[in-house]
Formats: sequence, C-alpha cells, structure tokens
Amino acid sequence: MLQNIRVVLVGTTHPGNIGGAARAMKNMGLSRLVLVDPRIFPSPDADARASGATDILEGAQVVATLEEALVGCRLVLGTSARDRSLPWPMLDPRASGEKVIEQAGEGAEVALVFGREHAGLTNEELQRCHFHVHIPSDPAFSSLNLAAAVQVLSYEVRVAWLAATEQGEASRPASAHNAELATMDEMEGFYAHLETTLVAIGFLDPEKPRHLMARLRRLYGRSEVERSELSILRGVLTETQKAARGEPYKRKDQ
Amino acid sequence: MLQNIRVVLVGTTHPGNIGGAARAMKNMGLSRLVLVDPRIFPSPDADARASGATDILEGAQVVATLEEALVGCRLVLGTSARDRSLPWPMLDPRASGEKVIEQAGEGAEVALVFGREHAGLTNEELQRCHFHVHIPSDPAFSSLNLAAAVQVLSYEVRVAWLAATEQGEASRPASAHNAELATMDEMEGFYAHLETTLVAIGFLDPEKPRHLMARLRRLYGRSEVERSELSILRGVLTETQKAARGEPYKRKDQ
Repeated sequence: MLQNIRVVLVGTTHPGNIGGAARAMKNMGLSRLVLVDPRIFPSPDADARASGATDILEGAQVVATLEEALVGCRLVLGTSARDRSLPWPMLDPRASGEKVIEQAGEGAEVALVFGREHAGLTNEELQRCHFHVHIPSDPAFSSLNLAAAVQVLSYEVRVAWLAATEQGEASRPASAHNAELATMDEMEGFYAHLETTLVAIGFLDPEKPRHLMARLRRLYGRSEVERSELSILRGVLTETQKAARGEPYKRKDQ
Repeated sequence: MLQNIRVVLVGTTHPGNIGGAARAMKNMGLSRLVLVDPRIFPSPDADARASGATDILEGAQVVATLEEALVGCRLVLGTSARDRSLPWPMLDPRASGEKVIEQAGEGAEVALVFGREHAGLTNEELQRCHFHVHIPSDPAFSSLNLAAAVQVLSYEVRVAWLAATEQGEASRPASAHNAELATMDEMEGFYAHLETTLVAIGFLDPEKPRHLMARLRRLYGRSEVERSELSILRGVLTETQKAARGEPYKRKDQ
C-alpha cells in the first residue's frame, strides 16, 4: 500500500533538499516523488544528498502545477505553519500517518505536499489540501529543513504502516465510509462548476469574493465527498444554472 | 526539563551533518550538543546547514571520548542498527522519547548518542548505553542520514514533552475546528430549505424522491457544518430560489 503514497515537493529552491527528501523517503519505504516546478533538477547536489536513493530521483515526475501533481488523489495533506487567516482541519504528524495508511490501505491515492523552503505553500495551494499538518516545533525556531520535514512525516507513515500490518487486515480500523471517494480532479471540476453557478445566481461577486470559495472548499473537503454524492451536487448545479437562465425545467420522466 | 537532554554525536565525518543536527535539535527545543572527536569542527559547512542554529554550534562541547561526553548522565540511549551480536534492551523512537522525558522530568541528565555516518557506534560504545534505539526503516535501505536520525529522535522527545507538560496543552494543534457548529435544529431548518429549493429548480421530484435528501443529509452531517458555513449555504439557497422564480438578482451593495 506504500506505493499509493506520493510525496509532492512544491517550488523547491535547493536541489540538495530534493536529494535529502528522496533519501528520507526511501529509508521509510516510500518511492513516489513528484516535483512541482523545481528551480534546479536534476542536479549533482540532489544526487549527492540522495546517497543511494538516486532511483527515486530518476523516477521522479516533474510537473508545472500542484493541480497536475494531485491528479487521481483522494486524500491530500499539506504541511503548514499554524497561523493562517482561514482555519483549516489540522492533523498532527502522528494522526497524519494513521490517516494516510488508512486511506492508502483502501487503495486510495494519497499525497503529502511540502512547500517552498522559505515561503511554504501559498494559501491557494493549502486550500487544495483536505488537511493541514503542523510538525510541532519550538515557536522560537519553528521552520524545519525541507528534507527533515519529509523525514518526520515519512517516519510517521512508516510507524502507522508497521502498526497496521502487524495488527493485520481484520483488526485494522475501518474508515468512516467505504464508498468510492471523488478524486481531487473531480472535486476541482465541481468547485469550478460551483463557482460559475454562484456567480450566475448573483451570490458570488467575482470582484468581492470574500473567501467564499475557500470556505466552501473547506466544508466539502472535510466531508470526503463520495463519487455518487458528487454527481448529485453536479446535478443540482446544472439545474440551478438552468433556473438562472430562466429555462423552464422538465422532469426526466415527462 | 529539555535542558537536561544532551545530543552526543560520535566521530562525525561531515560537518554539514553537525549543522543539520543542530538545526533539527533547535527546531525541537533542544540546545545541548556534545561532539566526540569530530573530524572537522568548526566549519562553514556546519554553519550553512545549521541555518540559524549557529548558537547551538557555538555552544557545542567538543570532547575526545564518549566517556567524557556522558559525564553526569543517568540515562543514555544509543542509536543502533538492529542486528548486534550482543542482545541489548531496545526501545523504539516513541518509547525513547517517553523514557527521556520521564527521566529528564525528574531532574536526571540524559544523553541521546548517535554514531559515525557509515560505521555507527562501536560495540564498546553501545555497551555504555542503557538502551539501544532503532529507527524503523526499510531493511533494503536502512541507513538514515545522521541529521535525519537526530530529527526523528528529537521530534519524539518533543512529542513526549508536549504530552507531559502544560506547554503541550497550549501549543498542541487545535482539533479539526473550534468554530461554533450549527445546532441540530439549525441543520433541520437548512434541510427543509434545501428540499424546497431542489423541488423549485426541478431537481427533486417529491413523488420520486429516491433517497436524495437522505444522501445529502449524510454528506453534510459528516462535515460537521459550522454556523458561519450554514449561513453561506442558506444564502446560496435563497438566491437559487430567486433564480427559480425568475427574479433578477441584485447585489447587496447596489
């Protein structure tokens, strides 16, 4: 199940950190690395710090946007400092490891997302995550090295994996629901549809968005929307758009 | 009590790793570094990797032998690969963090000892330790970077410290959301409004409801909707109803 887990590094500046992250992943049994717009890659510095994990660097996928990096994912965790204007569901690293293994064990694709060395993830990027993870650190010196942060979360994933595989299939706690969850890209399609619809009915003013979409993303993200539920929501939006255009509705059976 | 804990690095070859270890320590609130016979120290490489933790490097104690490094210690934990000819009491990192905090909390001096990059600790050095610690890693690629190993154990010490102290209460990540949740009766008002609206736009046929409301209740119920989020959802419904009645919308600020 560890192969369902991808580590996503966004906008990494120092290639040495990419190498360090690859080594940390491989030590913990993770193998899938995705790099979003790295400044320098490949690089001898990355190879040197990878120290035997160059196979992970060679297999790394390089993409332009976080959206591409998350295609197919059902669970996305993003590392974050604590203070954000918009509160978001938080997990500590231990709970993150358990959540990741619970979902990956059910066959879901899962992403652990790490931001830029100095600036972290942008608010927009953080809003694409279901949960934010904060590694507890001394508030007086709180910023971990990127590879160190990858090490801590990968370690917690491994600890949870070892606990789950030792416990065995039968006693593993089942997640809240077993139905197939919508993927990240399906959710993105829904959010785009929702935004268009809210503008059409005059609820969302594109010039004064007031964090409305972020709040709705947070609400639906928390709910872990199932694929069948998403099609209901999409249906509601489609009918709402027709109403906004003044089209009379027809029942399907008429 | 964290000041009772010293990190001891034995025979470190690469000064960059000393810097990385110092940064990892400081992130986790540890401050006392002891270096046993480092190959190169001080060093610009160490300063660069320390990245703001140079105070720990400047305060580091450099000694010639492990014996000197351990003076005054009541508890000594040494990192080790698992297979040793001489079986020894083992702790995993989590239990190590708890043990360290339990002893340091009683005023004891405690040491966490890390070996050489390639060769680890010698058997003689390991026999000076009360417990051996093994960081669980993939047997196929088991050797962690030195700074990464310091990061994992320092992290477990901090987690145990947070759990053991009031400081923990204050800085533990908040639960998923602290905001005021909608009450059951507010949710019922919302579901009634939602149902009326879905009928108005022709999405819900009262004669063939098809469990639609039950599915939506389950979706929103899972999400533990906040009061502020509920007022957004109610606002969307109100505007949708206006659209269904063919009323042109007016922005509130017009």
